[in-house]
Amino acid sequence: MTSLPDTPLLDKVEFPKDLKAIEDRDLPQLAREVRDEMIDAVSKTGGHLGAGLGVVELTIAIHKVFDTPDDRLIFDVGHQCYPHKILTGRRDRIRTLRQEDGLSGFTKRAESEYDPFGAAHSSTSISAGLGMAVAAELSKTDRKVIAVIGDGAMSAGMAYEALNNAGALDARLIVILNDNDMSIAPPTGAMSAYLARLASGRSYMGFRELGKKLTAYLGKTVDRAITRAVEHARGYVTGGTMFEELGFYHIGPIDGHSFEHLLPVLRNVRDNAKGPVLIHVVTQKGKGYAPAEAAADKYHGVNKFDVITGTQAKAKPNAPAYTAVFADALVEEARHDEKIVGITAAMPNGTGLDKLQTLFPERTFDVGIAEQHAVTFAAGLAAEGFKPFCALYSTFLQRGYDQVVHDVGIQGLPVRFPIDRAGFVGADGPTHAGSFDTGFLAALPGFVVMAAADEAELKHMVRTAAAYDEGPISFRYPRGEGVGVPMPERGEILEIGRGRIVKQGSKVALLSFGTRLADCLLAAEDLDAAGLSTTVADARFAKPLDHDLIRQLARHHQVVVTVEEGAVGGFGSHVMHFLVNEGLLDNGLKVRSLVLPDVWMDQAKPEVMYARAGLDASGILKTVFAALGQDVPGVIAAG
Amino acid sequence: MTSLPDTPLLDKVEFPKDLKAIEDRDLPQLAREVRDEMIDAVSKTGGHLGAGLGVVELTIAIHKVFDTPDDRLIFDVGHQCYPHKILTGRRDRIRTLRQEDGLSGFTKRAESEYDPFGAAHSSTSISAGLGMAVAAELSKTDRKVIAVIGDGAMSAGMAYEALNNAGALDARLIVILNDNDMSIAPPTGAMSAYLARLASGRSYMGFRELGKKLTAYLGKTVDRAITRAVEHARGYVTGGTMFEELGFYHIGPIDGHSFEHLLPVLRNVRDNAKGPVLIHVVTQKGKGYAPAEAAADKYHGVNKFDVITGTQAKAKPNAPAYTAVFADALVEEARHDEKIVGITAAMPNGTGLDKLQTLFPERTFDVGIAEQHAVTFAAGLAAEGFKPFCALYSTFLQRGYDQVVHDVGIQGLPVRFPIDRAGFVGADGPTHAGSFDTGFLAALPGFVVMAAADEAELKHMVRTAAAYDEGPISFRYPRGEGVGVPMPERGEILEIGRGRIVKQGSKVALLSFGTRLADCLLAAEDLDAAGLSTTVADARFAKPLDHDLIRQLARHHQVVVTVEEGAVGGFGSHVMHFLVNEGLLDNGLKVRSLVLPDVWMDQAKPEVMYARAGLDASGILKTVFAALGQDVPGVIAAG
Repeated sequence: MTSLPDTPLLDKVEFPKDLKAIEDRDLPQLAREVRDEMIDAVSKTGGHLGAGLGVVELTIAIHKVFDTPDDRLIFDVGHQCYPHKILTGRRDRIRTLRQEDGLSGFTKRAESEYDPFGAAHSSTSISAGLGMAVAAELSKTDRKVIAVIGDGAMSAGMAYEALNNAGALDARLIVILNDNDMSIAPPTGAMSAYLARLASGRSYMGFRELGKKLTAYLGKTVDRAITRAVEHARGYVTGGTMFEELGFYHIGPIDGHSFEHLLPVLRNVRDNAKGPVLIHVVTQKGKGYAPAEAAADKYHGVNKFDVITGTQAKAKPNAPAYTAVFADALVEEARHDEKIVGITAAMPNGTGLDKLQTLFPERTFDVGIAEQHAVTFAAGLAAEGFKPFCALYSTFLQRGYDQVVHDVGIQGLPVRFPIDRAGFVGADGPTHAGSFDTGFLAALPGFVVMAAADEAELKHMVRTAAAYDEGPISFRYPRGEGVGVPMPERGEILEIGRGRIVKQGSKVALLSFGTRLADCLLAAEDLDAAGLSTTVADARFAKPLDHDLIRQLARHHQVVVTVEEGAVGGFGSHVMHFLVNEGLLDNGLKVRSLVLPDVWMDQAKPEVMYARAGLDASGILKTVFAALGQDVPGVIAAG
Repeated sequence: MTSLPDTPLLDKVEFPKDLKAIEDRDLPQLAREVRDEMIDAVSKTGGHLGAGLGVVELTIAIHKVFDTPDDRLIFDVGHQCYPHKILTGRRDRIRTLRQEDGLSGFTKRAESEYDPFGAAHSSTSISAGLGMAVAAELSKTDRKVIAVIGDGAMSAGMAYEALNNAGALDARLIVILNDNDMSIAPPTGAMSAYLARLASGRSYMGFRELGKKLTAYLGKTVDRAITRAVEHARGYVTGGTMFEELGFYHIGPIDGHSFEHLLPVLRNVRDNAKGPVLIHVVTQKGKGYAPAEAAADKYHGVNKFDVITGTQAKAKPNAPAYTAVFADALVEEARHDEKIVGITAAMPNGTGLDKLQTLFPERTFDVGIAEQHAVTFAAGLAAEGFKPFCALYSTFLQRGYDQVVHDVGIQGLPVRFPIDRAGFVGADGPTHAGSFDTGFLAALPGFVVMAAADEAELKHMVRTAAAYDEGPISFRYPRGEGVGVPMPERGEILEIGRGRIVKQGSKVALLSFGTRLADCLLAAEDLDAAGLSTTVADARFAKPLDHDLIRQLARHHQVVVTVEEGAVGGFGSHVMHFLVNEGLLDNGLKVRSLVLPDVWMDQAKPEVMYARAGLDASGILKTVFAALGQDVPGVIAAG
């Protein structure tokens, strides 16, 4: 067991109220101790490292100046909340971050009154903060609301919608723009370039002086419009323009690692601000930990690591990760077809599109954290005969749902949707689970909706999607590693709407959609052994359904169980809908449908989550025996 | 039959190529004729009037200057596309607008090659146009792409995401900002105020001259930063700042009704622009038709009207419209509970929230066309103990889906979602149909999902939602009038998860979710008459399901049919899921599930659409008889 860092000052701080007793001049020391504590904790748990290290001073300063939890502090995304957790009564559990029954890796209302609004998806904090600021005004409460948001998150339309509304409402909201020029990937978009220009204007005070002089000099010799213009120009040099046009009073850029900058500004805003204020704070991601400072992208999210060397532990994968299989297969197809283009919403690495980017930079588009735009941008490309792969995580595709319906679906445009992180995601918990995509896509007329059963199937589906140009098509695959099946040189083009029998039996049929297939096969072994000859089928398609396959399963088995890693309303529902309306259930066939349970499941190891969901081999077995009115045989139940 | 307007010049224009033969000086005459034609057509069909009248000159000028359809012209939203349709080969069908088998009320790819990208929801055009501009560059085609977008649509985050990305890509995209200071409702938000400031700077040329002189005067006597600042200030006075910060070359504001302004600017941009350009055009909504000029809001969307007087035909309603019932009920509840607040995304009139706004202006929030923000803003209010009613159309709720999942659902915050325009919407067609909400909401753990069977039920559900403070709750109701049931003084608080038997029978059970109940009751009369004693139940809740009710129906009937005006994956799917997993279908109960058909159904009269969908009384009957293996009795089939 390694020794814990020495933190004499931090040991006196359990809650933000304890900060009041610490002198301003001692805060840098406290910051060092918080950093040591955080680095040590994350080295043991893995998690988001760089973001938290960048906001240690900012977090301390906010809690020192404001009266949390009565004042509301909202962290956008939540990647940067670990120092906040350390300072708000959760230090004793900080080494349980992202573990089962431990602290969430994000802010979470249920976890602490210091987390007034949970986060995990980007760019929600200004909207939530505005709601809280308006609530305070309606309640005639003198409450401050502070939203801390990164520059990357500013590329999302939602942040703009909220700024636009806050400016118009003239609400008493404090937005702290934490500008570290680095979200997960290097930031993209014109806003990012704009912020970089602002932040580089470090000598702004000099310009301001010049501006003042100029105004004084011009004085009465020119008309008021020119004076105003020059004042405005001064505003630009000090960095206000765009946010001020949106109705915010703009302060900054200031140094986010200097308490001498932070404390007076925050105190001033606390005491004097009447309307919306934006404080532009420049920080360095990974600050105070050399390996993270040197390679901010590699230390955004980390595995367990060695504090001294910075070396991250890496479990040796047994099989290639689905993301890598997708990435390689897409590159392969892109070599064969120059109409293939790739689109990512600020996740080139997470989606694997960085590989395409390296080889075909002109055909790869990182549009920023902007899923709505990503989808319709892809639709525009498809309308012109290109073959866009719009690669998003299942949970983030939710952000572009209307665009999927309105711009892709109704127009029948052949946009390809690779859907990564479908199903449980382990440590990231419920905010990142991919639970709903099959339901919300398969409901759309004309969509082709696939799920890969293993990494070879994923390769087939990439090729199938590349070849299919009749309309929209999606394919989902989970986080993590494949199952180790033999891999084809290149994927095959699958027949649309055709599943496959993986194993033929006669009494029980397991109809799987996606990677639960492996557990279906495990369950089938035990069922066979128990005398229940079991068919296992891989549906491949939730839409169009393989009606022949389903009819065959229904007619020649006593029990049919659908299995998927998605919520009710998806694959199983489409199968049931077909079965009942075809009258295939009129004669006493026993059907069961296994889906994700109807709860927001907290983070845990995936195998634990599958077991809880009843979606592992054991859960499938139990369902079959229960359907037959039989007890699970002792030998299986025990094993 | 009234005579058609006299249009000698327009008669020579069937397609944009015919414009090339018309002299610039004759275009104002052409514009007058297009207006006359459009007013006459809309007076007969109803539809969007003001938006189209505002862009007659702009539409003519674009088609005159650019080479459509090879150059791509995208109209945002599509409300303003009627003049475009008149000029692009569709004049002969212009009096079929929004009618069954007629022209769509929006742009539509399937309708014309001059509609390269369909629209109907707001703020998609810049994204689509950027996709097309990038496609042109990748194809090394010298193609221009023009997106025409209104100022109201600029409040949507999606537009910002696209601008942000276009600026960074430096794509060759022409955005025409059609600033008429009026979308559907008076615009809201800081961006709108900003545009108003720009547009009011009519004397900008003078300022620009002054700016130039100032720069020249300062010349070498001050350093470069000041020169740049002053140039920037000049940009502000000419109106460029914010768009220029996002990477666009900005031109304007110019007079959108003056060909002398429009033609040279468009020609200049066509010939010289290399990167993204934004042309700020000021127009007047309803231009050229006095009644519409005087009351732009009343003539945004119109019924058939008298051209001379402007008087709109109004069918005498037999029963109150659902929207009005909701609006009155919400006001009633708001009187009883000061924690109730209302939120609309630029649709105060469409959602009925204008009534709340009149009585409780400080508790009503129009956040702009910004559904993502609307939902999370509501979540922020709910987190502080308020009771937000976030009133959206079903189709627009799709825009805020991730926020519903991530900010409301996962946090279990008691946001109320009144969902208007659920189901078919008639003349507006597939882009506005509310088909998917039950599926995508009922999939979420912890949500309460209701549908009103009639206008009295809607009143109960408003009260129920006001009283229910345990978590998120939604209730859907359709466009149009109620069925004329007696109305209670005030709604009752319904028991959560409890349906009701409306009519008890013994052989057949019809389980309705929503307003198809009336047709279920009609069908039941005929079924009873045919000797099939029929139970009719109103489920009220898709989530939580009334398990007792469903068990009772399943155990005591030979046939159970679920009926809803929503896509597969919704209410019926939840019922099937319950039935199969409870083993209630193991013994040969015949179940059928009626949902919206799996097609994007074009506009038509609602009753025609219900018949096509098999969701009217006749369709329900047929399903029951088919389930029983019986022919529909002749007397019913005929009647």
